[in-house]
Amino acid sequence: MGRERAEAKAYLENAASLVEAELRRRLPAHRDIPGKLRAAMEHSLFAGGKRLRPALCLAAAEAVGGRREDALPGACALEMVHTYSLIHDDLPAMDDDDLRRGKPTCHVAFGEAAAILAGDALLTEAFATLAASPADAGRVKRAVAVLANAAGATGMVGGQQLDLDGEGQTATVEAATAIHLRKTAALLQAAVLVGAVLAGSSGYEQQALGRYGQALGLAFQVADDVLDATSSAEQLGKSPGKDREQKKLTYVAAAGVAAARRQARKLAREAVAALEPFRRRPACAVLRGLAELAVERKK
Amino acid sequence: MGRERAEAKAYLENAASLVEAELRRRLPAHRDIPGKLRAAMEHSLFAGGKRLRPALCLAAAEAVGGRREDALPGACALEMVHTYSLIHDDLPAMDDDDLRRGKPTCHVAFGEAAAILAGDALLTEAFATLAASPADAGRVKRAVAVLANAAGATGMVGGQQLDLDGEGQTATVEAATAIHLRKTAALLQAAVLVGAVLAGSSGYEQQALGRYGQALGLAFQVADDVLDATSSAEQLGKSPGKDREQKKLTYVAAAGVAAARRQARKLAREAVAALEPFRRRPACAVLRGLAELAVERKK
Repeated sequence: MGRERAEAKAYLENAASLVEAELRRRLPAHRDIPGKLRAAMEHSLFAGGKRLRPALCLAAAEAVGGRREDALPGACALEMVHTYSLIHDDLPAMDDDDLRRGKPTCHVAFGEAAAILAGDALLTEAFATLAASPADAGRVKRAVAVLANAAGATGMVGGQQLDLDGEGQTATVEAATAIHLRKTAALLQAAVLVGAVLAGSSGYEQQALGRYGQALGLAFQVADDVLDATSSAEQLGKSPGKDREQKKLTYVAAAGVAAARRQARKLAREAVAALEPFRRRPACAVLRGLAELAVERKK
Repeated sequence: MGRERAEAKAYLENAASLVEAELRRRLPAHRDIPGKLRAAMEHSLFAGGKRLRPALCLAAAEAVGGRREDALPGACALEMVHTYSLIHDDLPAMDDDDLRRGKPTCHVAFGEAAAILAGDALLTEAFATLAASPADAGRVKRAVAVLANAAGATGMVGGQQLDLDGEGQTATVEAATAIHLRKTAALLQAAVLVGAVLAGSSGYEQQALGRYGQALGLAFQVADDVLDATSSAEQLGKSPGKDREQKKLTYVAAAGVAAARRQARKLAREAVAALEPFRRRPACAVLRGLAELAVERKK
C-alpha cells in the first residue's frame, strides 16, 4: 500500500509538470487577453494546485490502454474548470475567502470584477481546450457532454447552491452526501471519465471508472471536511475552521471527526474495489494510490 | 427594404417561439437543479429577450442550404451564453444594474450568490446543449470551438474586461471599436457561424457569414450606445444614461450621437454587402432584414 502511494505521488508530480507546461503553452497563444484578466487567470491557475483532476484524467486514459497524450487536453480542461470553481466559490457573495493555497484569493488580488471574469474565462477556455483536442470528433463531443453535465446545474454548480442553501440547516449524513456528490464528486468523476472517453474505452470500462471516480470524489470531500475541522492555516494554505464558522452542512458536522475519518477510508476502499476490471493494467496501481492520497493528504 | 424588415421581424418572432419551447423542453429534464438556482436561471432566460442571436443562428443555417432543426441546439446555446453574460455584467461588482428588460436583474431578485451561479450554470449548459446536438460530431466539435473562442478571454469576456478598464478613459472611435468587437460583435458573429457550421457549410460561406456577423455585431453595439444616450427607462426596459454616468468608453462618447447613428447604418450596409454570395437564397432576405433591425430597434 505504501509503495502504491509513493508511485501515485510520483505520477501526480509528473502529471502536474506535464499539465502546467501544456496550460502555459496554450495561454501564450492568446496574445489578445486583456492584461488584468490574464493576470487574474494565471494567478489562480498557477497557484500550486495539486493537479489531482489532471492526474486522474491521464491515469484513467492509461488504465483503459490509451495514451496520456490523448487525454492531455481533457486534463487541462478539468483543471481550468476546477480553478474557475475555486475563484467563484471564494467570492465575497459566496464563501468569502481571503486565502487559497497560501496566497491571496483572486478577488483579493485583482478585485471582484476581474475575479468573476477570470472564472468565466477559465470555464469557457476549458471547452475551447477540449474542442482543440486532436482526438476523434466523436470522443471530443462525448467528453464535452461529460464535462458540461458534471460541472453544470445538476452537478458542481448545483452542489455549490446546495452548499449555500445548507448553511445553518441540521446536518445529516444523507444531506452532507447529497451536497458532496455534486459539489465535489461530480467533477472528480468527470476527470476520470473524460480521460477514459478521450482515450477510447468501452461502456463497461466507463461504468467501472465512474464508480471509482464517484467514491474517490466523496472520499476526497469527507477528508476535506476533516482537514477544515482539524488543521492550521499554515498546513492548509487556506483559512481553517470556516465550515463551523459558516455553519456548513458537512460530514463532520453530521457525524463528527472520527466517523468522518472512518467514512473517508471506507469510501477510498470502495473506489479501489471498483477498479477490479483493470487490476492487471500498470496504471491501475496509480489509480489505487491516488484514492489513498485523496484521503491521507495533509492539505 | 421595409418588406425585408417585416419578414425579419416575423422570422425573429417565430425563432423566439421555437427556441423558447426548446429551452423549456431542455430544462425540465433537469429535475435535479436546486430550486433557487433553477428559478434564477429561468428568471433571466425567460425574461422576454429579443432572441436575436438564435434567429441569426437559424437563418444562417438556412442561408447555407441547411435545416433550421440542425442549428436549433446552437441557437439555444447562444441564448444561454448571452443570458449568462447579462446576469454577470449586471452584478454589483460589474455594471451594477437593477433593471433589465423591465424586470429586476437576477441578483436583485435572487441575491448575488445565486446570480453568479445561475450565470455559471447557463454558460455550462450552453456547451452541454451543443454536445447533445444530433448533428455530426465533427460539426459539433467545430461549433464548440467557435462558441468557446467567441465567448472567452479573447472574445466576450475579454471585451467586458476592456469595457471595465475603459471607464473614465479618453474615448476614441478606435478604442470604442476594439471594445465593441469583443464585448458584442464576437458573440453575434458566433451566432451566425455556429448556425452555418452545424448545418454544414464551406469555408467560403463561413468567411462571408463571418464578415456579415461581425459588421452586424458592431452595428448592434453602436446602436446600443445611441439608445443608452437617447431613450427612457420605459422604452429601454433598463436604466438609460448609465454609459455617461459610469464614464463608459462608447462610440457616442467618442463621436457623438449623430455620428454614431450614421456609423450604425454604415455598418449595417456593410453587413448586407457581405451577404452577396447568398443573395439568391430565401433566408438571405431574413439576414438582410435582421441587419436592419439591429440598428433600427427601439430597445
